[in-house]
Amino acid sequence: MSRLVNGVKSFSTTASTLLADATAPSARSSFQVFRDVPSIRGLRRQLLQKDRTVGFVPTMGALHEGHLSLIRQAARENTDIFVSIFVNPTQFGVTEDLSSYPRTWDSDVEKLEQLNEELARLGESSASAGRITAIFAPTSKAMYPGSPPSSEVNGDGSFVTITPSPRNWKEDPALFSSVLFNITTPDRVYFGQKDVQQTVVIKRMVEDFHVGSEVRIIETAREHDGLALSSRNVYLGDRRRTVGLTIYKALKAAEDQYSAGKTARKDILGAAESLAQSVLAQQQALSPSERAIYEVDYISLADPDTLDEVDVVDPAKGAILSTAFKMAPLEESKPGEDCGLGEGKVPVRLIDNLILHPRT
Amino acid sequence: MSRLVNGVKSFSTTASTLLADATAPSARSSFQVFRDVPSIRGLRRQLLQKDRTVGFVPTMGALHEGHLSLIRQAARENTDIFVSIFVNPTQFGVTEDLSSYPRTWDSDVEKLEQLNEELARLGESSASAGRITAIFAPTSKAMYPGSPPSSEVNGDGSFVTITPSPRNWKEDPALFSSVLFNITTPDRVYFGQKDVQQTVVIKRMVEDFHVGSEVRIIETAREHDGLALSSRNVYLGDRRRTVGLTIYKALKAAEDQYSAGKTARKDILGAAESLAQSVLAQQQALSPSERAIYEVDYISLADPDTLDEVDVVDPAKGAILSTAFKMAPLEESKPGEDCGLGEGKVPVRLIDNLILHPRT
Repeated sequence: MSRLVNGVKSFSTTASTLLADATAPSARSSFQVFRDVPSIRGLRRQLLQKDRTVGFVPTMGALHEGHLSLIRQAARENTDIFVSIFVNPTQFGVTEDLSSYPRTWDSDVEKLEQLNEELARLGESSASAGRITAIFAPTSKAMYPGSPPSSEVNGDGSFVTITPSPRNWKEDPALFSSVLFNITTPDRVYFGQKDVQQTVVIKRMVEDFHVGSEVRIIETAREHDGLALSSRNVYLGDRRRTVGLTIYKALKAAEDQYSAGKTARKDILGAAESLAQSVLAQQQALSPSERAIYEVDYISLADPDTLDEVDVVDPAKGAILSTAFKMAPLEESKPGEDCGLGEGKVPVRLIDNLILHPRT
Repeated sequence: MSRLVNGVKSFSTTASTLLADATAPSARSSFQVFRDVPSIRGLRRQLLQKDRTVGFVPTMGALHEGHLSLIRQAARENTDIFVSIFVNPTQFGVTEDLSSYPRTWDSDVEKLEQLNEELARLGESSASAGRITAIFAPTSKAMYPGSPPSSEVNGDGSFVTITPSPRNWKEDPALFSSVLFNITTPDRVYFGQKDVQQTVVIKRMVEDFHVGSEVRIIETAREHDGLALSSRNVYLGDRRRTVGLTIYKALKAAEDQYSAGKTARKDILGAAESLAQSVLAQQQALSPSERAIYEVDYISLADPDTLDEVDVVDPAKGAILSTAFKMAPLEESKPGEDCGLGEGKVPVRLIDNLILHPRT
C-alpha cells in the first residue's frame, strides 16, 4: 500500500494525482509522507502557486482525539493540512526517559487515513473542508544535517556560539517549532490550549520574530469526565486514571471561586490546593495495593500575556490557571488489574489548565 | 516624485505597473518603499505566484560601493531584489553611539535609483539582469509591534522569558537577520565577506534553523589601494585614512606567510603583529598634529567553520584571518586639513579579513 520513492513515502496516489484530484469528492483520502526538507518545500511551493492554504499541526506522534480535533479545525480553515510527526530527542532532558515516549507510527498513519476519509465525506457536503495533504516525518539527519543530535544539553550539534547569547534552540520547544514553521511556512498553525505556557511563548515568538503564520489555539480536548487528552494517558491504567482526575477537579474548584466573584490568589488557588491535599491524604491512608500517590508539581495563577504570577486577578484581563501533577509509579499491583502500558511502572506527569476569562 | 500611500512610498510607477513592466527594457528603473510588514509580504506572495525569484540585501543604510556590488551580484541571480534599510537601535550597545551612525536616506535612495537605471541598461543586452523591486525600510513600530525598543540590554520590548533560555534576538545581528528573512522570505541573501564572523553565524543559523534561503557571501569590495569599503570610512579623514590602511597591509603580510608555506600561528600572525606595531611606533614618534594613533583590537586566525582560534592552519581547510583596529580621534588638527565627517573627533573601528584558502 505504501512505497518509498526518493525519500517520499507515497500512500495510494502519487503527488501529481494528489494535487490534481484532492478536491474531487470521489478521491480516496490520501497523503504523502515526507522524510526530508527539500521535498516538502517543493510541495509547499506548488501549493502557494495554486493559491491554496496550508494549516500545520505539529505533533510528536502518539495521536489521540485531541490531535484529531486540531486537524478538524485546520480543515475548516485551510485547503491543505500538514501534520508533522517528530520526536525531538533534544527536547527531552537527560533525566527524562525518551525511550518511554510512545512510538506509534502505524496506528498514527491509520488514524490520519481514517480522518482523511471523514474529511472527504464532509467535503461532499461542504466545499470548504480541507484535507491532510502531507505528513512531515523527518529523519534526525534531515533535521540536524550538521551532526547527529544528542539529548544532553550542549551535546553535539548544538549551535556555534560566537556572541555571548546562547541559542540552544534544540532544547527549546518554541524555537524548535519556529524551525518547523520555517520548513512548512504554513498560513496557520494549530496548538491545543493544554500546553498553555508553550502557546503563550509561541504566540509571542511568532509576533516578535515576524513569522508569517497565524497561531490558532484550540480548546483542550477532554474525556467525558473532563480529563485532558494526552499521549501519556495510556501509561496511567485504571487506578491512576481515577485518582489523576483530581488535576481537573482541582482546577474546577479554583475556577468556581473566580466565577463566584473572588479575585485573590489565596482564595482561588486555595480551593485547588485544599482539594489536591485532601485527595492525597485519602490515598496515603490506603494500602500500597490500593492507592495512587501523586506530587503536585505546581499550581499557577498567571497573567495571560506575560505568564507572570499574579496576586490578584484583574477581571478585565482574566488569568491562566494551570497545574501539573506527577503521578508516581504504582507501588503494588493487584492480580488482573489494568495498570496501563508499562505495567504501572512509568511515572506520568499530567498537565492541565483553564482560562479564567475576562468579566465583561 | 514620490508619495506615501497606505504606508507604501511609491517611486515613479505603481506596484501593478511595476510587476507588469519590470522586464520590459524600456521601463524606467523604479522601486517601491515599504514601511510595514504586511505590504512587503503581499508583494512577496505575488512574486512567488509569478515564479519570480528574490535576492535580499540587508543594510543599515549609508550605502556605498560595497552594497552596490552585492546588489549587482543579486541582479545576476534573481529577477527581483529587495534591499532593506534599517538601523536596529538595539544592535548598538549602551556604550556605542547610535547617533553617530550616518543616516543618509536621500542619498541612499538616489544611489539605488541610479543602480536600477544601470541594471535596466544591462537588461537590454541580457535577459537575466534583475532589478531592485522593493526597499524595505520599516518603522521601529513595524519591527517591534509590542513596545518601542530600547538600546539598553533588557530594555522594553525584550523577549518574554519563560524557559531559562534567554532569547534577546534584538541585540543579536544574526537572529535579527533571521527576522528580516522571515519577513522577506528571499530565495537568496547577500552578505559581504567583510563581516566574516557574522557571515559564519548566519550561514550556520540558516542551516540549523532550516531557513529556506541560500546564503551568498560576496568578496569584500575595496578601494584602489585595498582599504575595505565601509559606511564608517567617511569619518576617517585623510590622515587616519592613510594610517588606517595598515589594517589591510597587516593582513597581507600574514597572508604572504601562508602563501610562502607557513602554517604556524606564530609565523602567520607574527608578521601582521610586527607590522602593526612598527607603524604604530612610527606614529607615536610624531607630534599630535601629525600622527594618527590606533589600538589593535584583535588579530585572529580561526577555523573557517567554527571560528575557533587555531594554532596551526590545516592546509586542507584553510583559515580565516581577521582583525579590527580602533582608530582614535585626532589629537590636534592642522589648518585646512580634511579630518572627515565629525572633524576627526569620532573614533572609528575598522574591520577586515582575508580567507586563507585550502591548498589543493
